[in-house]
Amino acid sequence: MRFTSDTSSNGVREQLFVLDGASGEVPGVLWTPGDAAGPRPLILMGHGGGQHKKAPGVAVRAHRFVTGGGFAVAAVDVPGHGDRPTDEELNRLATANQARADAGEELAPLIAGFQALVSRRTVPEWRAALDALHALDHVGAGPVGYWGVSLGCGLGVPFVAAEPRVRAAVLGLGGAPASADVAARITAPVQFLLQWDDERVPRAQGLALFDAFASAEKTLHANPGKHGELPAFELDGNLRFFERHLR
Amino acid sequence: MRFTSDTSSNGVREQLFVLDGASGEVPGVLWTPGDAAGPRPLILMGHGGGQHKKAPGVAVRAHRFVTGGGFAVAAVDVPGHGDRPTDEELNRLATANQARADAGEELAPLIAGFQALVSRRTVPEWRAALDALHALDHVGAGPVGYWGVSLGCGLGVPFVAAEPRVRAAVLGLGGAPASADVAARITAPVQFLLQWDDERVPRAQGLALFDAFASAEKTLHANPGKHGELPAFELDGNLRFFERHLR
Repeated sequence: MRFTSDTSSNGVREQLFVLDGASGEVPGVLWTPGDAAGPRPLILMGHGGGQHKKAPGVAVRAHRFVTGGGFAVAAVDVPGHGDRPTDEELNRLATANQARADAGEELAPLIAGFQALVSRRTVPEWRAALDALHALDHVGAGPVGYWGVSLGCGLGVPFVAAEPRVRAAVLGLGGAPASADVAARITAPVQFLLQWDDERVPRAQGLALFDAFASAEKTLHANPGKHGELPAFELDGNLRFFERHLR
Repeated sequence: MRFTSDTSSNGVREQLFVLDGASGEVPGVLWTPGDAAGPRPLILMGHGGGQHKKAPGVAVRAHRFVTGGGFAVAAVDVPGHGDRPTDEELNRLATANQARADAGEELAPLIAGFQALVSRRTVPEWRAALDALHALDHVGAGPVGYWGVSLGCGLGVPFVAAEPRVRAAVLGLGGAPASADVAARITAPVQFLLQWDDERVPRAQGLALFDAFASAEKTLHANPGKHGELPAFELDGNLRFFERHLR
């Protein structure tokens, strides 16, 4: 793990870093309280499709988790996203999927196949990121939370299923074809965000994914609105959920 | 409104009262912070079937709303419940419904008919209770919240639909046959609690009732478990919801 920048603003310290991965360098960001010393729970966040580790939907929530809960929060770029090079294989698949969707094919299974392919790279990358972050003095090897919706859910489900250090996960905006089999291996508490009028994930598939988690504690939060219209007040509920399970 | 007792314990003042209603006296309870002076938002709570105004499921939550949010909280006995006399008409109907259910008839429509009948009495009684409570110095005529699940949802839906003073409602453990038409007249923010394995309310009917609310802001909170197994952590979410809308 190599740090490339270290800045602070509004009580939040932001450190950019690079990790060596099997598919090349993995750029990441770590946010901690400005005065952080000693161990604290870590929340890893997965960004959405076409976004990156510092996209507003990630950064705004990360700042809240840091300032509101004293957590450490980290995110890394998914292959083909952010500061990572264009990935020809993923590009070809995305283009082919778009053509199949334009020709009338059902979108959800195409998304599912794409995310399954990407997750074969991100699961080991994210586990390696945990290893490196846990070795830092101001993070430490404490309990881990995961936050990810949409692509962050499609990649998050296999990550949470594979990673016993994750003790609580906020997931959402994903559907069963992508993840139901893998979701059935998850036993950590889950808070699942579903948009009632999601134009990308059919309602029944979102409900089926929630149904699939093996977690004894799991809560579905459903709100009216489209895929990109998660209500701001859910962030407060996310924070309370992480505080309850990671503290 | 006639007060019959006034006690305090652990920072919560409890006043028992009686209101005159069209179907006889309506016994009620008002909880406020021990040192309450001046107006504050009021939360009216509806109890469950076979329960009463001070049943643990009501009292525990009421105390939290008072001590955690500084709210005034009130509940009154439903006809045939608590300190109210046995109601022959309701008893006959309940007995007849039980016989029909035992004979294999679907339970949900029977519950729906029963709750619709009872609500013709409770809606005016609860509106009269608001009038009387709003005239008290330590309550005042501020915004009103409603909390009720199961029978408290079946009776709460027509109450919230009829009462413009209600600015936020926690409802749940109810289904569409009982309330969908009336729910479509509700525009206040709703937090709706659904038990994923409810043995009394089929899942699809609970989801259909959530779907029916006309509220621009409504959130479904679904958790694993049976009808009587609402998780304790939802109370925290109820309190945050009321704080957001009534303060």
